[in-house]
Amino acid sequence: MRRQPAPDMLMPYRHTLTDRVQFADTDMAGIVHFSNFFRYMERVEHDFFRSLGMSIWDGHNVVVNEERVGWPRVHASCDYRAPLMFEDVFTMELLVEEVRRKTIRYLVRFWKADGDLSAEGRLIVACVQRDKTTGKMKAVEIPQRILETLEVAPPEMLKGPGSASK
Amino acid sequence: MRRQPAPDMLMPYRHTLTDRVQFADTDMAGIVHFSNFFRYMERVEHDFFRSLGMSIWDGHNVVVNEERVGWPRVHASCDYRAPLMFEDVFTMELLVEEVRRKTIRYLVRFWKADGDLSAEGRLIVACVQRDKTTGKMKAVEIPQRILETLEVAPPEMLKGPGSASK
Amino acid sequence: MRRQPAPDMLMPYRHTLTDRVQFADTDMAGIVHFSNFFRYMERVEHDFFRSLGMSIWDGHNVVVNEERVGWPRVHASCDYRAPLMFEDVFTMELLVEEVRRKTIRYLVRFWKADGDLSAEGRLIVACVQRDKTTGKMKAVEIPQRILETLEVAPPEMLKGPGSASK
Amino acid sequence: MRRQPAPDMLMPYRHTLTDRVQFADTDMAGIVHFSNFFRYMERVEHDFFRSLGMSIWDGHNVVVNEERVGWPRVHASCDYRAPLMFEDVFTMELLVEEVRRKTIRYLVRFWKADGDLSAEGRLIVACVQRDKTTGKMKAVEIPQRILETLEVAPPEMLKGPGSASK
Repeated sequence: MRRQPAPDMLMPYRHTLTDRVQFADTDMAGIVHFSNFFRYMERVEHDFFRSLGMSIWDGHNVVVNEERVGWPRVHASCDYRAPLMFEDVFTMELLVEEVRRKTIRYLVRFWKADGDLSAEGRLIVACVQRDKTTGKMKAVEIPQRILETLEVAPPEMLKGPGSASK
Repeated sequence: MRRQPAPDMLMPYRHTLTDRVQFADTDMAGIVHFSNFFRYMERVEHDFFRSLGMSIWDGHNVVVNEERVGWPRVHASCDYRAPLMFEDVFTMELLVEEVRRKTIRYLVRFWKADGDLSAEGRLIVACVQRDKTTGKMKAVEIPQRILETLEVAPPEMLKGPGSASK
Repeated sequence: MRRQPAPDMLMPYRHTLTDRVQFADTDMAGIVHFSNFFRYMERVEHDFFRSLGMSIWDGHNVVVNEERVGWPRVHASCDYRAPLMFEDVFTMELLVEEVRRKTIRYLVRFWKADGDLSAEGRLIVACVQRDKTTGKMKAVEIPQRILETLEVAPPEMLKGPGSASK
Repeated sequence: MRRQPAPDMLMPYRHTLTDRVQFADTDMAGIVHFSNFFRYMERVEHDFFRSLGMSIWDGHNVVVNEERVGWPRVHASCDYRAPLMFEDVFTMELLVEEVRRKTIRYLVRFWKADGDLSAEGRLIVACVQRDKTTGKMKAVEIPQRILETLEVAPPEMLKGPGSASK
């Protein structure tokens, strides 16, 4: 099954990033090690934030200390279809699948240069803040400044070529 | 919620491995980067095979060429509960959750030294063989020599402290 | 000490590549883990080969089997001056420092966006081929087709801002 | 050339650690990726500190805030002799090669199970402290509590099977 990712424009619910497989990302089976798809997913997520004028690391935004939030992952998954090889060019397509009060769920599709789907993954990230009393991280509501910037992707974009279970 | 992993003995459906978090496994948030839990899962899976007198890499077994199989991942997921930090000692507990004709599903729990659950993950691996005609990998039935060695864990072991969706 | 890398053009002895620090590349000290500079060095080396119309992996070139060579590293070193942080943009500048009969030595400088030198490293790679009799890799003379493509950088480029010992 | 590492005892200038190559450490050439030797070196360095009752991360020692030091790498190098493969068991042998006022130089040898030398590397680490005024890290003299714990290895141990240049 094939679908070319559409050319990218600034969108509050979709972002693409094209990269090339590095030698160190491969393993002795000659393909990208499965754990590296999770690094790739994070890469497009962070690039998505930058594309919206934000940073996933609030120290990089002009945000006063007490309003800074972090985004630890509470869930990550990936379904693998076709391996990526050394020097393959591939495109990551990130979609905002769900925004809840304290979490965001992203869908990430990995497209090969020929239009085939290589893999499809999901990240659920929680919005956290350091508790002033305990010093520990705790889940908090996503700040308004971020909610205003994001949107959930239209359902027809999320229905997808992959059958990955949520 | 706490449950200490039982002391390990040779079992065809359960294996544990204890390790310590390395500096390079952490990220700037001060915790183990989420992608490394997938490397850890693979580590206990491979150690499980060795504990049963096999290797995940059939070149390391005394297996004639035409019977060699490989185990690419078709699915990987992880639910994160409590972070692991530098120098933390943790125990991975692997359970065989399901054996189908061509795939195996593993459940891996990450236990902190204090008995808390840090994370719970799953791997689905497919048994593949190189097709003599096309040269490509294709899914095949798990060889008898391996099926004989494995068992599915008892249901009460699989029902667990984690609520991770399958 | 500052020196901006010159704008890049196709050169048989110099190549630059600009990238951004990823979250997974950092460690709990908040900086890029020192081992990742070696991955970065390899990245610019491989990109250099591509810029010259070759691939470091001869399977990707139109090279008949018996002429295929590989490039294992026999030496790698790095001197660290100023750390790179998450989301920092940096430029790798690779120079061909020496070409011998069977080895190439590269010098790689890491430039921060403000023109400061972050690190300076070296790779010595050996040209190897699989011995038909033993099946083992052995060092061989660099093929003419590659020698023709490369040049050693002019001495004034190699004398550098860094005082890294060879 | 072969030399078996001597059995390990607690020593203020020598430490060994035995490990097994993981699948994710290999690359498509079927061997441990060269960058991972630097991760391995750091692993034995940190294990050496633990063997002496310390931690490389002063937050883990009972050290008051203003006496805490860190150990960024200022130099790292490795000479590669014979590759390590998946599931190979290998032993890292760390020796304290030099202690200066603000830096320590370690020599790390990688021994294969058959006694062959796989690689030989060096780390130079600087003792740093956060400057109270600027907030930046700056090199400081190694605290007495640490100097008392370490010794330089005897010259005959450092003269070695490897000819790695310093």
